[in-house]
Amino acid sequence: MVDLPIAAVIRIAKKNGAERVGSDAAAALLAKTEAYIANLAKDANRLAQHAGRKTIKEEDVDFAAKST
Amino acid sequence: MVDLPIAAVIRIAKKNGAERVGSDAAAALLAKTEAYIANLAKDANRLAQHAGRKTIKEEDVDFAAKST
Repeated sequence: MVDLPIAAVIRIAKKNGAERVGSDAAAALLAKTEAYIANLAKDANRLAQHAGRKTIKEEDVDFAAKST
Repeated sequence: MVDLPIAAVIRIAKKNGAERVGSDAAAALLAKTEAYIANLAKDANRLAQHAGRKTIKEEDVDFAAKST
């Protein structure tokens, strides 16, 4: 995968109190974040189809996030 | 916040079956992803401190992901 910029992920981590992030930890953060988006998108897409739509709306993402 | 590029988030969503992603849905995906990283980083940081370290390691992220 690796679609997200690792620097942005580290920046968010540091904003949230992470003092130092090892490079192995940064890679793990990135991988888990991409997996999170993938799961959220799959669930949101299923919810959109369930509602008879092809376009994912905010409500689908909100619903998907409850169970992810 | 908005540290992550929204285009990258949409790209990951589309790779995972999302046909069309409304702009409100894209913004929701982005916000939830940033919140996910923030939570994961906070927990990983606490785990690193718990282990007497200032540097977050992969094992902290793995541990944090189990409960996030």
